[in-house]
Amino acid sequence: MKVLVTGANGFVAQGLVAALARPGALGTQIEELILADLSAGTAAGHWIPGDLADPAYLAALAALAPDLVFHLASIPGSLAEQRPHLGRAINLNAPQALFAALAAQGNRARVVFASSIAVLGALGPGPVSEDAVPAPDLSYGAHKWMTEILLADLTRRNELDGISLRLPGIVARPPAETGHGSAFMSQIFHRAAAREAYACPVSAQATCWWMSRQVLVANLLHAATMDGAALAPSRMVQLPVLHASVGDILAALAERFGAQFITHTPDPRIEALFGRLPPLHTPRALAAGFLRDSDAHSLIENALNF
Amino acid sequence: MKVLVTGANGFVAQGLVAALARPGALGTQIEELILADLSAGTAAGHWIPGDLADPAYLAALAALAPDLVFHLASIPGSLAEQRPHLGRAINLNAPQALFAALAAQGNRARVVFASSIAVLGALGPGPVSEDAVPAPDLSYGAHKWMTEILLADLTRRNELDGISLRLPGIVARPPAETGHGSAFMSQIFHRAAAREAYACPVSAQATCWWMSRQVLVANLLHAATMDGAALAPSRMVQLPVLHASVGDILAALAERFGAQFITHTPDPRIEALFGRLPPLHTPRALAAGFLRDSDAHSLIENALNF
Repeated sequence: MKVLVTGANGFVAQGLVAALARPGALGTQIEELILADLSAGTAAGHWIPGDLADPAYLAALAALAPDLVFHLASIPGSLAEQRPHLGRAINLNAPQALFAALAAQGNRARVVFASSIAVLGALGPGPVSEDAVPAPDLSYGAHKWMTEILLADLTRRNELDGISLRLPGIVARPPAETGHGSAFMSQIFHRAAAREAYACPVSAQATCWWMSRQVLVANLLHAATMDGAALAPSRMVQLPVLHASVGDILAALAERFGAQFITHTPDPRIEALFGRLPPLHTPRALAAGFLRDSDAHSLIENALNF
Repeated sequence: MKVLVTGANGFVAQGLVAALARPGALGTQIEELILADLSAGTAAGHWIPGDLADPAYLAALAALAPDLVFHLASIPGSLAEQRPHLGRAINLNAPQALFAALAAQGNRARVVFASSIAVLGALGPGPVSEDAVPAPDLSYGAHKWMTEILLADLTRRNELDGISLRLPGIVARPPAETGHGSAFMSQIFHRAAAREAYACPVSAQATCWWMSRQVLVANLLHAATMDGAALAPSRMVQLPVLHASVGDILAALAERFGAQFITHTPDPRIEALFGRLPPLHTPRALAAGFLRDSDAHSLIENALNF
C-alpha cells in the first residue's frame, strides 16, 4: 500500500507518521510512505517537498497513485483570516485540485480529510448533536465545510473513497506553533508542566472540546481502515470529544504538577470562538469506533506523551 | 449602476434582461448592462462573449467592476453528472474565481447567485422547512451548496454582498433546452398548449415545486435591491414555491387548452429526483418579500407569458 501524508511536518502528522512506522499499523504492508510539506523533515519516508498552492506539485503527488491519503495540511484559522489569499489557496483550492488529481488516477483512494469543528461556528449553550447545522464564522471553517461536501460528492461518484473527520482542539501542540487562536489550549499544558507563568486568554469557566494527539492518531488510523459505507452519504464524522472547562483541566494539571502560575486575562474574541463550547453528543461516531480521551487526567497523560 | 448578467443567453436571463430594460426596474439608472455568455445574443446590452472556464475571461468581466452581478450561468444537473469535468469547471471553479476577482475590485458588489433546490437531495414525505439540511445526490447540487457557503463567507468578510436563491423548477423552459432532468415540468405546458402528444416521464401523482419565470424574475430583482442583512449569516433564500402534482397542473392545462394527449411512462430515476417533493414551508422568505405563483392557473398564465 502507498500512503500519502500532506502537512507531514505538522504536529498531528508527526504523531501519525510515528504511528505508521509501527508494524501492522494499517493491518497491511506500507510499501511507500510519501511525505509532503514545504520542506523535508526528519521522519523516515519518501519526502517530496513542495507548495500545495502549486498545481504541478499536487499533480506530481497524485501521479504516485497513493491508495491512502491523509490530507492534514492547512492554514490555521486565525492566520487564514489575516491572510485570506493564502487561506483560500491552501484550505480551499488545494484540496479541490488534489482530490481531482487523485480521482483521475482511477484507483479510488481512501482519503482521510482533517476537517474541523470550526465549520460549526458559534454554538448556543445547549447540547449539540452530530447533526448540528454549520454556520462558520471563519473562512477556515467555511473552506473545511466546502471540502467535506466535495469529498462526499466524489465518494458518491466512486471517484474517491473519502472520510472527513471534524477535529476539536488537539493538545498539546508545541509552544512554537502559530496561527491557532486556540493555542491557549496547548499552552496551559506546557506552562503547567514547566511551572511557568502564563496569562491565559480565556477564563477558567471557558469550556472547550479537547482531544489528545494520541487519541486523534488512533482515530485517523481507524478512519483509514474502516468501512466507509456506514458514514454515507455525508462521509463526515464529528469526532467524540472530552468536554471540559479550562478550570477542570488546570485543576487536574495542578494535581499532576503542583503549584501553577497561570492567570486569566480573557480576550472576548478568543473566549467567544473557543471557550463557549456546549456538551457534544456523538453516539454515531462512538458506535462507528471513534474514540475520545476519557477524562482530564487521561487527557494530560496522552497530551504530554510526545 | 453597472450590472453584470452571466449565462445571459439562458432562459432565466432572457426574462431578467427584458425586465431590466424597463425604466426603474432597479430603482436606479443602469449605466451599463454587461451580458456574458459563450456567444453574443440579441438583447440590448454590452455583450462580452467568452468561456467561464477561462480565468482570463472571468478576470476581464470582474475588471469592469459591476455593482450588481446576477450569476446565472451553470451546467444543468443531468449534463453535469455526465460531464463531470465540465460541471466542475462551470459550477464550482468558475464562481470561485469570479467571486475572488469581483471581491478584489473592492466595491463590495451585490451578487445574486442562482442556487438550486438540488442542494437538498432526496427528501422524505413530510413537510420541509427553510432549515432542511442539504444532502445533495448530484454534483450539481453539491457544487451549488459549496458556492452558497463561499458567498456567505465573502459577505461576512465584507468582500462581497451576496444573496443565494435556491430555485425550484422554472417553467416553461423552451422545448429545445437540454440537460435538465426536470425538462418534463416545462414540456407539459408546451405540449398541452399545442395539443401535441407527450410521454411524460413521471406519473400524474408526481409532486413538484414550481415557479414561473415571471415570478422568478420578480424575485431576482427583489434580491438585487433588498437589504441583505436580514438574511445573515447564510445569505441563503429558499424561494417560496407552488407545491402541486403533475396531475393538478395537467387538469388546469386541460381547463385552459382543452383535450390533451399526454400519457405517463414514469422513469424511476426522474420520478425519484423531481417527482417526490413534499410540502415546503418558507415563512422567512415570504416575510422577506419573496413571491410564489399562487395556484396552477396563475402558474400557467405566468409560465406561458414569454
